[in-house]
Amino acid sequence: MKPIYFDHAATTPVCKEALEKMLPYFSDVFGNPNSQHAFGRESAKAVDGARDSIAKIINCKPNELYFTAGGTESDNWALRGVAHAYKDKGNHIVISPIEHAAMIVTAKELKKEGFDVDFMKVDEYGFVDLDHLKSIVKKGTIFVGCMLANNEVGTIEPIKEIAEIAHSVGAICFTDAVQAAGVLKIDVKDLGVDLMSMSSHKIYGPKGVGALYIRNGVKVQSILTGGHQERTKRGGTTNVAGIVGFATAFEIADKEMQKNFEYVSSLRDHFIDRVLSEVSFVKLNGPRENRLPANADFSFKFIEGESILFSLDLAGICVSSGSACSSGSLEPSHVLLSLGLPEELAHGSIRFSFGKHNTIEEVDYAVDTIKTAVSRLREMSPLFKSEGEIKYV
Amino acid sequence: MKPIYFDHAATTPVCKEALEKMLPYFSDVFGNPNSQHAFGRESAKAVDGARDSIAKIINCKPNELYFTAGGTESDNWALRGVAHAYKDKGNHIVISPIEHAAMIVTAKELKKEGFDVDFMKVDEYGFVDLDHLKSIVKKGTIFVGCMLANNEVGTIEPIKEIAEIAHSVGAICFTDAVQAAGVLKIDVKDLGVDLMSMSSHKIYGPKGVGALYIRNGVKVQSILTGGHQERTKRGGTTNVAGIVGFATAFEIADKEMQKNFEYVSSLRDHFIDRVLSEVSFVKLNGPRENRLPANADFSFKFIEGESILFSLDLAGICVSSGSACSSGSLEPSHVLLSLGLPEELAHGSIRFSFGKHNTIEEVDYAVDTIKTAVSRLREMSPLFKSEGEIKYV
Repeated sequence: MKPIYFDHAATTPVCKEALEKMLPYFSDVFGNPNSQHAFGRESAKAVDGARDSIAKIINCKPNELYFTAGGTESDNWALRGVAHAYKDKGNHIVISPIEHAAMIVTAKELKKEGFDVDFMKVDEYGFVDLDHLKSIVKKGTIFVGCMLANNEVGTIEPIKEIAEIAHSVGAICFTDAVQAAGVLKIDVKDLGVDLMSMSSHKIYGPKGVGALYIRNGVKVQSILTGGHQERTKRGGTTNVAGIVGFATAFEIADKEMQKNFEYVSSLRDHFIDRVLSEVSFVKLNGPRENRLPANADFSFKFIEGESILFSLDLAGICVSSGSACSSGSLEPSHVLLSLGLPEELAHGSIRFSFGKHNTIEEVDYAVDTIKTAVSRLREMSPLFKSEGEIKYV
Repeated sequence: MKPIYFDHAATTPVCKEALEKMLPYFSDVFGNPNSQHAFGRESAKAVDGARDSIAKIINCKPNELYFTAGGTESDNWALRGVAHAYKDKGNHIVISPIEHAAMIVTAKELKKEGFDVDFMKVDEYGFVDLDHLKSIVKKGTIFVGCMLANNEVGTIEPIKEIAEIAHSVGAICFTDAVQAAGVLKIDVKDLGVDLMSMSSHKIYGPKGVGALYIRNGVKVQSILTGGHQERTKRGGTTNVAGIVGFATAFEIADKEMQKNFEYVSSLRDHFIDRVLSEVSFVKLNGPRENRLPANADFSFKFIEGESILFSLDLAGICVSSGSACSSGSLEPSHVLLSLGLPEELAHGSIRFSFGKHNTIEEVDYAVDTIKTAVSRLREMSPLFKSEGEIKYV
């Protein structure tokens, strides 16, 4: 049996349409878009088309969209770039505590350079506390950054309100839309953000490509300097095939958005409902409303996340403990700790992220497998013996 | 007629073998290599294999090889990363004046931060003056960087000697092998360099992927921070298909190296010989020995490079004025100025870079076209009328 893939927040397969559109740009239309000749012009045309297409979807001008190597580069560029471009104006940076590692680690690096980094408060579901944010932004705040939707627990943040608060003190507002772009309708002008990160491989496009929206007028210091690519703001030969694949995947995601949202969230809701009613001592992390359609994240009390992960893997079910980017680390999830979970629950969480090719049968099989795995693992858990069974009985 | 491509130093088509090897990693084996499940493990295995393969070719350990989004990122990472990691040891940086823009522009940025940047001297062929280098390195020199082979005029530099000089003062030695890797035999241990940049799309691999060799023990501060990828040194989801394509292209380039070197340099030598003997007032830029096999770079007196470029483009011949990365700028080539060319000749240069699929017939057609284009353009040149014709007759 082919394993069942419930880890779409980590990455997705490239959709047929995107791959087909990419193929000519590897070996046939292979010119460097910066070259002033026939091969170059054909490639440049493809990149221009891709830029126009994505710009239209998120409602920005094509010259406000910069292609990068992915979400992490976009996040790094936004945060480092604004910090260094506006350091004469202030040194105060505010981000949410549930940002992706690309933001958290970068903020820590900037702290070493002398920037003052504050974290927003989030409630038990991961929603940013806007009153607290209002109380910490100030005249010297230059950057306010928050994910549009969280990668671990799926919380969709009130970015429009966050942008208003940021702008009230003259700060630049950034949102990481890596999990949201192509899944939720995004209009950057309506949201009011100045910068926004996007990634291709989360929405059935190829890995190694992403974009950063930079509102015209916003200064962002370059982090990859060199040639004249991306209007001299981001050096490096343009990844033509990758960009064409990204734009195609984005177009399809945009077209199928409503349908995919409904289908994927129906699978997810069925999954959540069954787990909550059929598994004991389980906690759904994140909210039930204003949540990414694909995401379900559970903490299973008395069990290590890794143990469930391995049990499910053996049964042919591929899920994630925490985010893929932090996998391999034995740290508890910083996201779950920020939501107030105790360490043992933050260690025991499993993220299920569904995709448009998953079926209800796969979901039911997963629930049945979880039930078996959880009982077996708890049978071996001395903690469960002493605490859980008593309460459960 | 399909245009003739003589711009292989700008980019190359992905070879059939590389594309074939890449294909399964888009939609079938699509897992995130960081994911701890079946899909992730299969992808991780492919990336490990690619790393082993390239490491073997350049004679380093697999854990000394870090995948990046390309040559520019590798160059940026090496220079910024060493500067920031060793700033307590010194602030003196030495690079050649004919480096790629990714180095030149980055060095200028570091200068703004307070680093002291010196340039090596090069002779009229682009070779680094080792005595001059010896005279400028000092106790506080932390970084010495020079291209293995130049992208515009093809000069192959004495990197081994440069590395010895760098190490004599305890500096880190970096080489940009973007044009050389896969074309010349490279053994990083024998060369003695501490860091080396490589790129995939210059050697018939896909765009958007490259690597940085970092000798174990050398400190390099990260420029893309975030997840645990690349042993926590370079965040961002691993570009599995790109890396597999890069490694496959590198393997083939390594296997075919001798054959391609001989074939491409024979085309190039035929081209140079004919142009030098059949076109007047022409200057070959760069040396005849110790030159990249694919490269020929000419300055045509009394004519703007752009004019020849357009004439050749109209005749279906795709070449470059300067490097593709600087195309679009009207500046004269910084490389040619460093070789001592006057501005008008530095403006009038054209780079021809041949590839393994080019034929002698294409080369002959190009020479014939150049002869016609050059005479026609000179007929329209008042400068030629007053100076050239008199001398020429």
